[in-house]
Amino acid sequence: MARLVEKVLCIIFPLLVIASCSVSPVHSRKFKASEPCKRIVLYYHDILFNGTNVANATSVIAANENKLGDFKFGMLVVFDDPMTKDHHLLSPPVARAQGFYFYDMKTTYNAWFAYTLLFNSTEHKGTLNIMGADMMDQETRDLSVVGGTGDFFMARGIATFRTDTFQGTEYFRLQMDIKLYECY
Amino acid sequence: MARLVEKVLCIIFPLLVIASCSVSPVHSRKFKASEPCKRIVLYYHDILFNGTNVANATSVIAANENKLGDFKFGMLVVFDDPMTKDHHLLSPPVARAQGFYFYDMKTTYNAWFAYTLLFNSTEHKGTLNIMGADMMDQETRDLSVVGGTGDFFMARGIATFRTDTFQGTEYFRLQMDIKLYECY
Amino acid sequence: MARLVEKVLCIIFPLLVIASCSVSPVHSRKFKASEPCKRIVLYYHDILFNGTNVANATSVIAANENKLGDFKFGMLVVFDDPMTKDHHLLSPPVARAQGFYFYDMKTTYNAWFAYTLLFNSTEHKGTLNIMGADMMDQETRDLSVVGGTGDFFMARGIATFRTDTFQGTEYFRLQMDIKLYECY
Repeated sequence: MARLVEKVLCIIFPLLVIASCSVSPVHSRKFKASEPCKRIVLYYHDILFNGTNVANATSVIAANENKLGDFKFGMLVVFDDPMTKDHHLLSPPVARAQGFYFYDMKTTYNAWFAYTLLFNSTEHKGTLNIMGADMMDQETRDLSVVGGTGDFFMARGIATFRTDTFQGTEYFRLQMDIKLYECY
Repeated sequence: MARLVEKVLCIIFPLLVIASCSVSPVHSRKFKASEPCKRIVLYYHDILFNGTNVANATSVIAANENKLGDFKFGMLVVFDDPMTKDHHLLSPPVARAQGFYFYDMKTTYNAWFAYTLLFNSTEHKGTLNIMGADMMDQETRDLSVVGGTGDFFMARGIATFRTDTFQGTEYFRLQMDIKLYECY
Repeated sequence: MARLVEKVLCIIFPLLVIASCSVSPVHSRKFKASEPCKRIVLYYHDILFNGTNVANATSVIAANENKLGDFKFGMLVVFDDPMTKDHHLLSPPVARAQGFYFYDMKTTYNAWFAYTLLFNSTEHKGTLNIMGADMMDQETRDLSVVGGTGDFFMARGIATFRTDTFQGTEYFRLQMDIKLYECY
Protein backbone atom coordinates (compact mmCIF):
# COMPACT_ATOMS: atom_id res chain seq x y z
CA MET A 1 0.00 0.00 0.00
CA ALA A 2 2.80 2.38 0.92
CA ARG A 3 4.52 1.33 -2.31
CA LEU A 4 1.44 2.30 -4.31
CA VAL A 5 1.10 5.71 -2.69
CA GLU A 6 4.75 6.34 -3.30
CA LYS A 7 4.45 5.30 -6.94
CA VAL A 8 1.44 7.53 -7.50
CA LEU A 9 3.12 10.51 -5.85
CA CYS A 10 6.17 9.95 -7.99
CA ILE A 11 4.09 10.33 -11.13
CA ILE A 12 1.69 13.05 -10.03
CA PHE A 13 4.21 15.34 -8.42
CA PRO A 14 6.26 15.94 -11.56
CA LEU A 15 3.04 16.43 -13.51
CA LEU A 16 2.10 19.24 -11.16
CA VAL A 17 5.52 20.69 -11.72
CA ILE A 18 5.05 20.60 -15.47
CA ALA A 19 1.64 22.17 -15.12
CA SER A 20 2.87 24.98 -12.92
CA CYS A 21 5.76 25.65 -15.27
CA SER A 22 3.91 25.68 -18.54
CA VAL A 23 0.65 27.41 -17.70
CA SER A 24 2.20 30.19 -15.67
CA PRO A 25 0.99 33.19 -17.66
CA VAL A 26 3.64 35.51 -18.97
CA HIS A 27 2.24 38.50 -17.19
CA SER A 28 2.88 36.86 -13.84
CA ARG A 29 6.59 37.39 -14.42
CA LYS A 30 7.73 39.61 -11.59
CA PHE A 31 10.08 42.51 -11.81
CA LYS A 32 10.82 44.25 -8.54
CA ALA A 33 11.20 48.00 -8.88
CA SER A 34 13.88 47.81 -6.19
CA GLU A 35 15.92 45.15 -8.00
CA PRO A 36 17.07 46.34 -11.42
CA CYS A 37 19.49 44.05 -13.27
CA LYS A 38 21.53 47.15 -14.19
CA ARG A 39 21.63 50.72 -12.87
CA ILE A 40 23.40 53.80 -14.24
CA VAL A 41 23.12 57.28 -12.73
CA LEU A 42 24.12 60.14 -15.03
CA TYR A 43 23.73 63.90 -15.32
CA TYR A 44 22.29 65.57 -18.41
CA HIS A 45 23.43 69.10 -19.32
CA ASP A 46 21.43 71.22 -21.75
CA ILE A 47 22.79 74.54 -23.05
CA LEU A 48 20.33 76.17 -25.42
CA PHE A 49 21.63 78.06 -28.45
CA ASN A 50 20.78 81.76 -28.08
CA GLY A 51 22.27 82.98 -31.36
CA THR A 52 25.75 83.76 -30.04
CA ASN A 53 26.97 80.87 -27.82
CA VAL A 54 28.03 78.65 -30.74
CA ALA A 55 30.99 77.13 -28.91
CA ASN A 56 29.03 76.03 -25.83
CA ALA A 57 25.51 75.42 -27.08
CA THR A 58 24.35 71.80 -27.32
CA SER A 59 20.70 72.29 -28.30
CA VAL A 60 18.58 74.43 -30.61
CA ILE A 61 14.99 75.60 -30.80
CA ALA A 62 13.37 73.83 -33.76
CA ALA A 63 9.86 75.22 -33.22
CA ASN A 64 8.90 78.32 -31.28
CA GLU A 65 6.46 78.51 -28.44
CA ASN A 66 2.90 79.44 -29.16
CA LYS A 67 0.99 82.08 -27.23
CA LEU A 68 -1.13 79.75 -25.12
CA GLY A 69 -0.08 80.54 -21.55
CA ASP A 70 3.27 81.78 -20.31
CA PHE A 71 5.22 78.52 -20.13
CA LYS A 72 6.55 78.10 -23.66
CA PHE A 73 3.77 75.68 -24.71
CA GLY A 74 4.79 74.29 -28.10
CA MET A 75 8.48 75.17 -28.00
CA LEU A 76 10.41 72.19 -29.36
CA VAL A 77 14.12 71.76 -28.71
CA VAL A 78 16.48 69.34 -30.48
CA PHE A 79 19.57 68.39 -28.47
CA ASP A 80 22.92 66.61 -28.58
CA ASP A 81 23.83 66.89 -24.91
CA PRO A 82 26.72 65.52 -22.84
CA MET A 83 26.06 63.05 -20.02
CA THR A 84 28.48 63.03 -17.09
CA LYS A 85 28.90 60.86 -14.00
CA ASP A 86 28.85 63.78 -11.59
CA HIS A 87 27.04 67.09 -11.84
CA HIS A 88 29.95 69.14 -13.21
CA LEU A 89 29.30 70.39 -16.72
CA LEU A 90 32.98 70.11 -17.58
CA SER A 91 33.51 66.54 -16.38
CA PRO A 92 34.41 64.16 -19.21
CA PRO A 93 31.17 62.97 -20.87
CA VAL A 94 30.53 59.22 -20.61
CA ALA A 95 27.63 59.32 -23.08
CA ARG A 96 25.67 61.66 -25.38
CA ALA A 97 21.91 62.23 -25.21
CA GLN A 98 20.42 62.89 -28.66
CA GLY A 99 16.75 63.64 -29.14
CA PHE A 100 14.18 66.31 -28.42
CA TYR A 101 11.86 67.77 -25.83
CA PHE A 102 9.01 70.22 -25.99
CA TYR A 103 7.05 72.22 -23.42
CA ASP A 104 3.42 71.17 -23.23
CA MET A 105 1.39 72.95 -20.56
CA LYS A 106 -0.30 76.33 -20.29
CA THR A 107 -0.30 76.59 -16.46
CA THR A 108 3.25 75.53 -15.54
CA TYR A 109 6.56 74.38 -17.01
CA ASN A 110 6.15 70.80 -18.12
CA ALA A 111 7.94 68.87 -20.85
CA TRP A 112 7.94 65.67 -22.89
CA PHE A 113 11.15 63.87 -23.92
CA ALA A 114 12.17 61.25 -26.49
CA TYR A 115 15.87 60.55 -26.95
CA THR A 116 18.70 58.09 -27.26
CA LEU A 117 21.62 57.68 -24.87
CA LEU A 118 24.72 56.80 -26.90
CA PHE A 119 27.54 55.06 -25.06
CA ASN A 120 30.92 54.61 -26.72
CA SER A 121 33.49 53.99 -23.99
CA THR A 122 35.47 51.07 -22.69
CA GLU A 123 32.77 50.62 -20.06
CA HIS A 124 29.71 50.57 -22.35
CA LYS A 125 29.06 50.48 -26.09
CA GLY A 126 25.50 50.75 -27.30
CA THR A 127 22.35 52.81 -26.97
CA LEU A 128 19.27 53.17 -24.80
CA ASN A 129 16.02 54.62 -26.16
CA ILE A 130 13.86 56.57 -23.74
CA MET A 131 10.53 58.42 -23.87
CA GLY A 132 7.99 59.91 -21.51
CA ALA A 133 6.59 62.90 -19.70
CA ASP A 134 8.77 65.20 -17.60
CA MET A 135 6.39 66.70 -15.04
CA MET A 136 8.87 69.30 -13.91
CA ASP A 137 7.10 70.34 -10.71
CA GLN A 138 7.38 66.85 -9.23
CA GLU A 139 10.54 65.98 -7.35
CA THR A 140 11.06 62.82 -9.38
CA ARG A 141 9.28 61.51 -12.46
CA ASP A 142 9.59 58.25 -14.32
CA LEU A 143 10.06 57.82 -18.07
CA SER A 144 10.25 54.52 -19.97
CA VAL A 145 13.39 52.91 -21.35
CA VAL A 146 11.71 51.28 -24.36
CA GLY A 147 14.66 49.57 -26.03
CA GLY A 148 18.39 49.21 -26.29
CA THR A 149 21.17 48.08 -28.61
CA GLY A 150 24.79 46.88 -28.32
CA ASP A 151 25.67 46.20 -24.68
CA PHE A 152 22.06 47.11 -23.87
CA PHE A 153 20.60 44.74 -26.48
CA MET A 154 16.80 44.54 -26.05
CA ALA A 155 16.86 46.30 -22.67
CA ARG A 156 13.80 47.82 -21.01
CA GLY A 157 13.41 49.77 -17.80
CA ILE A 158 12.73 53.08 -16.09
CA ALA A 159 14.60 56.41 -16.25
CA THR A 160 13.91 58.57 -13.20
CA PHE A 161 14.45 62.31 -13.69
CA ARG A 162 15.34 64.71 -10.90
CA THR A 163 15.98 68.40 -11.60
CA ASP A 164 19.46 69.29 -10.45
CA THR A 165 19.42 72.92 -11.50
CA PHE A 166 17.24 75.04 -13.76
CA GLN A 167 18.72 78.38 -14.79
CA GLY A 168 15.98 79.72 -16.97
CA THR A 169 15.74 77.81 -20.23
CA GLU A 170 19.34 78.50 -21.22
CA TYR A 171 20.97 75.93 -18.94
CA PHE A 172 19.44 73.16 -16.98
CA ARG A 173 20.74 69.92 -15.54
CA LEU A 174 18.84 66.73 -14.81
CA GLN A 175 19.90 63.69 -12.87
CA MET A 176 18.85 60.59 -14.81
CA ASP A 177 18.70 57.43 -12.73
CA ILE A 178 18.43 54.61 -15.24
CA LYS A 179 17.25 51.24 -13.97
CA LEU A 180 17.02 48.31 -16.37
CA TYR A 181 14.77 45.36 -15.52
CA GLU A 182 15.28 43.41 -18.73
CA CYS A 183 18.95 42.69 -19.44
CA TYR A 184 20.26 40.16 -21.97
CA MET B 1 12.09 -5.36 -12.29
CA ALA B 2 9.09 -3.16 -11.65
CA ARG B 3 11.15 -1.50 -8.93
CA LEU B 4 13.87 -0.68 -11.42
CA VAL B 5 11.49 0.80 -13.97
CA GLU B 6 9.93 2.89 -11.26
CA LYS B 7 13.30 4.09 -10.08
CA VAL B 8 14.39 5.05 -13.57
CA LEU B 9 11.16 6.89 -14.29
CA CYS B 10 11.54 8.78 -11.05
CA ILE B 11 14.86 10.13 -12.22
CA ILE B 12 14.13 10.67 -15.90
CA PHE B 13 10.76 12.29 -15.57
CA PRO B 14 11.95 15.29 -13.54
CA LEU B 15 14.87 15.66 -15.93
CA LEU B 16 12.44 16.04 -18.79
CA VAL B 17 10.61 18.62 -16.75
CA ILE B 18 13.80 20.57 -16.21
CA ALA B 19 14.58 20.38 -19.89
CA SER B 20 11.17 21.56 -20.98
CA CYS B 21 11.32 24.43 -18.52
CA SER B 22 14.74 25.73 -19.34
CA VAL B 23 14.98 25.38 -23.09
CA SER B 24 11.54 26.80 -23.92
CA PRO B 25 12.51 29.75 -26.10
CA VAL B 26 11.33 33.13 -24.99
CA HIS B 27 9.59 33.92 -28.20
CA SER B 28 7.25 30.99 -27.73
CA ARG B 29 5.55 32.93 -24.94
CA LYS B 30 1.97 33.43 -26.01
CA PHE B 31 -0.10 36.52 -25.60
CA LYS B 32 -3.68 36.31 -26.80
CA ALA B 33 -4.99 39.51 -28.35
CA SER B 34 -8.37 38.72 -26.82
CA GLU B 35 -7.00 38.30 -23.29
CA PRO B 36 -5.31 41.46 -22.04
CA CYS B 37 -4.25 41.43 -18.39
CA LYS B 38 -5.66 44.96 -18.07
CA ARG B 39 -8.02 47.05 -20.19
CA ILE B 40 -8.94 50.74 -19.98
CA VAL B 41 -11.23 52.54 -22.43
CA LEU B 42 -10.96 56.33 -22.45
CA TYR B 43 -11.88 59.29 -24.63
CA TYR B 44 -9.33 61.84 -25.80
CA HIS B 45 -10.45 65.44 -26.45
CA ASP B 46 -8.29 67.80 -28.48
CA ILE B 47 -9.14 71.52 -28.74
CA LEU B 48 -6.63 73.34 -30.92
CA PHE B 49 -5.57 76.88 -30.00
CA ASN B 50 -6.77 79.28 -32.70
CA GLY B 51 -5.37 82.49 -31.22
CA THR B 52 -8.41 83.44 -29.16
CA ASN B 53 -9.74 80.36 -27.29
CA VAL B 54 -7.18 80.56 -24.47
CA ALA B 55 -9.55 79.27 -21.81
CA ASN B 56 -10.59 76.12 -23.69
CA ALA B 57 -7.64 75.25 -25.88
CA THR B 58 -5.56 72.22 -24.89
CA SER B 59 -3.15 72.01 -27.82
CA VAL B 60 -1.04 74.28 -30.00
CA ILE B 61 0.48 74.20 -33.45
CA ALA B 62 4.27 73.94 -33.03
CA ALA B 63 5.09 73.65 -36.73
CA ASN B 64 2.94 74.72 -39.65
CA GLU B 65 1.83 72.55 -42.53
CA ASN B 66 3.85 72.56 -45.69
CA LYS B 67 2.32 72.99 -49.13
CA LEU B 68 2.57 69.36 -50.23
CA GLY B 69 -1.05 68.34 -50.79
CA ASP B 70 -4.15 69.65 -49.04
CA PHE B 71 -4.10 67.62 -45.85
CA LYS B 72 -1.83 69.64 -43.57
CA PHE B 73 1.25 67.47 -44.27
CA GLY B 74 3.94 68.56 -41.79
CA MET B 75 1.68 70.34 -39.28
CA LEU B 76 2.87 69.36 -35.81
CA VAL B 77 0.66 69.81 -32.75
CA VAL B 78 1.74 69.62 -29.10
CA PHE B 79 -1.06 68.73 -26.67
CA ASP B 80 -2.00 68.43 -23.02
CA ASP B 81 -5.45 66.90 -23.44
CA PRO B 82 -8.04 65.62 -20.96
CA MET B 83 -9.04 61.94 -21.00
CA THR B 84 -12.55 61.05 -19.85
CA LYS B 85 -14.42 57.79 -19.24
CA ASP B 86 -17.33 58.72 -21.47
CA HIS B 87 -17.42 60.88 -24.57
CA HIS B 88 -18.52 64.11 -22.89
CA LEU B 89 -15.88 66.83 -23.09
CA LEU B 90 -16.93 68.20 -19.72
CA SER B 91 -16.87 64.93 -17.79
CA PRO B 92 -14.23 64.91 -15.04
CA PRO B 93 -10.89 63.90 -16.58
CA VAL B 94 -9.42 60.65 -15.23
CA ALA B 95 -6.06 61.19 -16.96
CA ARG B 96 -4.12 63.65 -19.11
CA ALA B 97 -2.59 62.86 -22.49
CA GLN B 98 0.64 64.81 -23.08
CA GLY B 99 2.58 64.54 -26.31
CA PHE B 100 2.33 65.42 -29.97
CA TYR B 101 0.94 64.42 -33.33
CA PHE B 102 1.60 65.54 -36.87
CA TYR B 103 -0.16 65.09 -40.19
CA ASP B 104 1.87 63.05 -42.65
CA MET B 105 0.14 62.36 -45.96
CA LYS B 106 -0.44 64.30 -49.13
CA THR B 107 -3.55 62.41 -50.33
CA THR B 108 -5.68 62.17 -47.17
CA TYR B 109 -5.74 63.10 -43.47
CA ASN B 110 -3.37 60.80 -41.66
CA ALA B 111 -1.43 61.34 -38.44
CA TRP B 112 1.33 59.97 -36.22
CA PHE B 113 1.20 60.12 -32.41
CA ALA B 114 3.64 59.82 -29.52
CA TYR B 115 2.41 60.66 -26.05
CA THR B 116 2.12 59.79 -22.39
CA LEU B 117 -1.07 59.05 -20.48
CA LEU B 118 -0.70 60.44 -16.95
CA PHE B 119 -2.95 58.94 -14.28
CA ASN B 120 -3.17 60.53 -10.85
CA SER B 121 -6.37 59.36 -9.22
CA THR B 122 -7.36 56.97 -6.44
CA GLU B 123 -7.89 54.34 -9.13
CA HIS B 124 -4.55 54.61 -10.94
CA LYS B 125 -1.24 56.42 -10.38
CA GLY B 126 1.40 56.19 -13.08
CA THR B 127 1.96 56.63 -16.78
CA LEU B 128 1.66 54.77 -20.07
CA ASN B 129 3.84 55.66 -23.06
CA ILE B 130 2.31 55.19 -26.50
CA MET B 131 3.42 55.67 -30.10
CA GLY B 132 2.29 54.75 -33.59
CA ALA B 133 0.48 55.66 -36.77
CA ASP B 134 -3.09 56.97 -36.78
CA MET B 135 -4.46 56.00 -40.19
CA MET B 136 -7.53 58.17 -39.84
CA ASP B 137 -9.54 56.67 -42.68
CA GLN B 138 -9.58 53.23 -41.09
CA GLU B 139 -12.34 52.50 -38.61
CA THR B 140 -9.86 51.31 -36.00
CA ARG B 141 -6.09 51.43 -35.90
CA ASP B 142 -3.59 50.02 -33.43
CA LEU B 143 -0.71 51.87 -31.79
CA SER B 144 1.87 50.41 -29.41
CA VAL B 145 1.98 50.88 -25.65
CA VAL B 146 5.77 50.76 -25.33
CA GLY B 147 6.24 51.24 -21.61
CA GLY B 148 4.69 52.25 -18.31
CA THR B 149 5.54 53.51 -14.84
CA GLY B 150 3.94 53.53 -11.37
CA ASP B 151 0.86 51.28 -11.32
CA PHE B 152 1.71 50.43 -14.93
CA PHE B 153 5.35 49.56 -14.16
CA MET B 154 6.98 48.01 -17.26
CA ALA B 155 3.65 47.54 -19.06
CA ARG B 156 3.33 46.86 -22.78
CA GLY B 157 0.29 46.51 -25.00
CA ILE B 158 -1.89 47.93 -27.74
CA ALA B 159 -3.90 51.17 -27.90
CA THR B 160 -6.74 50.97 -30.42
CA PHE B 161 -7.96 54.32 -31.77
CA ARG B 162 -11.47 54.91 -33.07
CA THR B 163 -12.55 58.37 -34.27
CA ASP B 164 -15.52 59.48 -32.23
CA THR B 165 -15.97 62.88 -33.84
CA PHE B 166 -13.85 65.10 -36.05
CA GLN B 167 -14.98 68.73 -36.29
CA GLY B 168 -12.38 70.14 -38.62
CA THR B 169 -9.00 70.37 -36.93
CA GLU B 170 -10.29 72.53 -34.09
CA TYR B 171 -11.97 69.80 -32.07
CA PHE B 172 -11.76 66.08 -32.41
CA ARG B 173 -12.38 63.18 -30.09
CA LEU B 174 -10.87 59.71 -30.19
CA GLN B 175 -11.82 56.60 -28.31
CA MET B 176 -8.65 54.94 -27.02
CA ASP B 177 -9.10 51.29 -26.09
CA ILE B 178 -5.96 50.40 -24.14
CA LYS B 179 -5.17 46.72 -23.71
CA LEU B 180 -2.11 45.68 -21.71
CA TYR B 181 -0.58 42.22 -22.24
CA GLU B 182 2.38 42.62 -19.94
CA CYS B 183 1.37 43.61 -16.39
CA TYR B 184 3.59 43.42 -13.31
CA MET C 1 17.71 1.90 3.46
CA ALA C 2 17.92 2.07 -0.33
CA ARG C 3 14.15 2.41 -0.36
CA LEU C 4 14.36 5.37 1.95
CA VAL C 5 16.99 7.15 -0.12
CA GLU C 6 14.95 6.56 -3.22
CA LYS C 7 11.82 7.90 -1.56
CA VAL C 8 13.59 11.02 -0.36
CA LEU C 9 15.11 11.67 -3.78
CA CYS C 10 11.73 11.26 -5.36
CA ILE C 11 10.38 14.08 -3.22
CA ILE C 12 13.38 16.38 -3.21
CA PHE C 13 14.20 16.23 -6.89
CA PRO C 14 10.89 17.63 -8.12
CA LEU C 15 11.09 20.30 -5.44
CA LEU C 16 14.40 21.41 -6.89
CA VAL C 17 12.77 21.50 -10.29
CA ILE C 18 9.98 23.69 -8.99
CA ALA C 19 12.49 25.96 -7.35
CA SER C 20 14.61 26.30 -10.45
CA CYS C 21 11.56 27.02 -12.57
CA SER C 22 9.94 29.62 -10.39
CA VAL C 23 12.89 31.62 -9.13
CA SER C 24 14.69 31.85 -12.47
CA PRO C 25 14.84 35.61 -12.86
CA VAL C 26 13.22 37.04 -15.94
CA HIS C 27 16.32 38.86 -17.01
CA SER C 28 18.11 35.56 -17.51
CA ARG C 29 15.96 34.98 -20.61
CA LYS C 30 18.36 34.82 -23.49
CA PHE C 31 17.95 36.35 -26.91
CA LYS C 32 20.75 35.74 -29.35
CA ALA C 33 21.47 38.67 -31.65
CA SER C 34 22.24 36.17 -34.40
CA GLU C 35 18.94 34.31 -34.07
CA PRO C 36 15.98 36.58 -34.68
CA CYS C 37 12.56 34.91 -34.82
CA LYS C 38 11.75 37.04 -37.87
CA ARG C 39 13.85 39.11 -40.27
CA ILE C 40 12.81 41.57 -42.99
CA VAL C 41 15.24 43.61 -45.09
CA LEU C 42 13.76 46.65 -46.83
CA TYR C 43 14.88 49.87 -48.50
CA TYR C 44 13.62 53.28 -47.43
CA HIS C 45 13.41 56.09 -50.01
CA ASP C 46 13.08 59.71 -48.92
CA ILE C 47 12.39 62.48 -51.46
CA LEU C 48 12.20 65.86 -49.75
CA PHE C 49 9.67 68.43 -50.99
CA ASN C 50 11.54 71.40 -52.46
CA GLY C 51 8.53 73.53 -53.39
CA THR C 52 8.06 72.19 -56.89
CA ASN C 53 8.35 68.38 -56.91
CA VAL C 54 4.78 67.78 -55.71
CA ALA C 55 4.32 64.59 -57.73
CA ASN C 56 7.45 62.84 -56.44
CA ALA C 57 8.04 64.27 -52.97
CA THR C 58 7.30 62.00 -49.99
CA SER C 59 8.50 64.18 -47.11
CA VAL C 60 8.33 67.80 -45.98
CA ILE C 61 10.33 70.11 -43.74
CA ALA C 62 8.20 70.84 -40.66
CA ALA C 63 10.81 72.90 -38.81
CA ASN C 64 13.82 74.65 -40.29
CA GLU C 65 17.40 74.21 -39.28
CA ASN C 66 18.88 76.58 -36.75
CA LYS C 67 22.21 78.33 -37.24
CA LEU C 68 24.25 76.18 -34.88
CA GLY C 69 26.88 74.58 -37.13
CA ASP C 70 26.59 73.70 -40.80
CA PHE C 71 24.76 70.38 -40.61
CA LYS C 72 21.10 71.40 -40.45
CA PHE C 73 20.88 71.05 -36.65
CA GLY C 74 17.21 71.36 -35.72
CA MET C 75 15.73 70.68 -39.17
CA LEU C 76 12.74 68.36 -38.65
CA VAL C 77 11.27 66.36 -41.52
CA VAL C 78 7.91 64.54 -41.57
CA PHE C 79 7.71 61.66 -44.04
CA ASP C 80 5.40 59.13 -45.67
CA ASP C 81 8.00 57.11 -47.55
CA PRO C 82 7.81 53.95 -49.68
CA MET C 83 9.64 50.81 -48.57
CA THR C 84 10.81 48.41 -51.28
CA LYS C 85 12.43 44.96 -51.29
CA ASP C 86 15.31 46.01 -53.51
CA HIS C 87 17.02 49.36 -53.82
CA HIS C 88 15.10 50.62 -56.85
CA LEU C 89 12.97 53.66 -56.06
CA LEU C 90 10.34 52.55 -58.57
CA SER C 91 9.96 48.96 -57.36
CA PRO C 92 6.48 48.25 -55.97
CA PRO C 93 6.40 49.35 -52.33
CA VAL C 94 5.76 46.54 -49.83
CA ALA C 95 5.25 48.92 -46.91
CA ARG C 96 5.11 52.64 -46.00
CA ALA C 97 7.28 54.33 -43.41
CA GLN C 98 5.43 57.17 -41.64
CA GLY C 99 7.11 59.33 -39.04
CA PHE C 100 9.81 61.94 -38.67
CA TYR C 101 13.50 62.57 -38.34
CA PHE C 102 15.57 65.59 -37.40
CA TYR C 103 19.23 66.51 -37.67
CA ASP C 104 20.89 66.91 -34.30
CA MET C 105 24.61 67.65 -34.42
CA LYS C 106 26.71 70.73 -35.01
CA THR C 107 29.87 68.96 -36.22
CA THR C 108 28.52 66.38 -38.69
CA TYR C 109 25.33 65.06 -40.26
CA ASN C 110 23.54 63.00 -37.67
CA ALA C 111 19.84 62.27 -37.26
CA TRP C 112 17.20 60.83 -34.94
CA PHE C 113 14.19 58.82 -36.18
CA ALA C 114 10.81 57.75 -34.84
CA TYR C 115 8.37 56.11 -37.25
CA THR C 116 5.96 53.34 -38.04
CA LEU C 117 6.30 50.73 -40.78
CA LEU C 118 2.84 50.00 -42.17
CA PHE C 119 2.39 46.67 -43.96
CA ASN C 120 -0.78 45.97 -45.91
CA SER C 121 -0.05 43.16 -48.36
CA THR C 122 -0.89 39.49 -48.69
CA GLU C 123 2.45 38.77 -47.02
CA HIS C 124 2.11 40.99 -43.94
CA LYS C 125 -0.62 43.10 -42.36
CA GLY C 126 0.26 45.21 -39.36
CA THR C 127 2.74 47.77 -38.08
CA LEU C 128 6.15 48.03 -36.46
CA ASN C 129 7.11 51.02 -34.32
CA ILE C 130 10.75 52.07 -34.36
CA MET C 131 12.88 54.77 -32.72
CA GLY C 132 16.51 55.62 -32.19
CA ALA C 133 19.60 57.52 -33.23
CA ASP C 134 20.92 57.43 -36.80
CA MET C 135 24.63 58.14 -36.47
CA MET C 136 25.12 58.67 -40.16
CA ASP C 137 28.91 58.46 -40.22
CA GLN C 138 28.90 54.90 -38.93
CA GLU C 139 28.58 52.11 -41.48
CA THR C 140 25.71 50.51 -39.58
CA ARG C 141 23.71 51.72 -36.61
CA ASP C 142 21.02 50.04 -34.55
CA LEU C 143 17.63 51.48 -33.64
CA SER C 144 14.98 49.83 -31.44
CA VAL C 145 11.79 48.17 -32.64
CA VAL C 146 9.69 49.06 -29.61
CA GLY C 147 6.35 47.53 -30.52
CA GLY C 148 4.17 46.05 -33.19
CA THR C 149 0.54 45.37 -34.11
CA GLY C 150 -1.39 42.99 -36.38
CA ASP C 151 0.90 40.26 -37.73
CA PHE C 152 3.63 41.84 -35.60
CA PHE C 153 1.52 41.86 -32.43
CA MET C 154 3.71 42.85 -29.44
CA ALA C 155 6.96 42.47 -31.39
CA ARG C 156 10.30 43.88 -30.27
CA GLY C 157 13.70 43.88 -31.91
CA ILE C 158 16.43 45.83 -33.68
CA ALA C 159 16.39 47.81 -36.94
CA THR C 160 19.87 48.16 -38.42
CA PHE C 161 20.35 51.13 -40.77
CA ARG C 162 22.91 51.23 -43.56
CA THR C 163 23.17 54.23 -45.90
CA ASP C 164 22.63 53.06 -49.45
CA THR C 165 22.92 56.45 -51.12
CA PHE C 166 22.81 60.04 -49.94
CA GLN C 167 22.27 62.64 -52.65
CA GLY C 168 22.29 65.81 -50.62
CA THR C 169 19.19 66.10 -48.49
CA GLU C 170 16.81 65.84 -51.43
CA TYR C 171 17.03 62.10 -51.94
CA PHE C 172 18.53 59.45 -49.75
CA ARG C 173 18.04 55.73 -49.39
CA LEU C 174 18.61 53.55 -46.35
CA GLN C 175 18.72 49.81 -46.03
CA MET C 176 16.72 48.79 -42.97
CA ASP C 177 17.51 45.31 -41.70
CA ILE C 178 14.74 44.52 -39.24
CA LYS C 179 15.32 41.67 -36.81
CA LEU C 180 12.59 40.71 -34.35
CA TYR C 181 13.48 38.79 -31.19
CA GLU C 182 10.04 38.76 -29.62
CA CYS C 183 7.40 37.24 -31.93
CA TYR C 184 3.94 36.10 -30.86
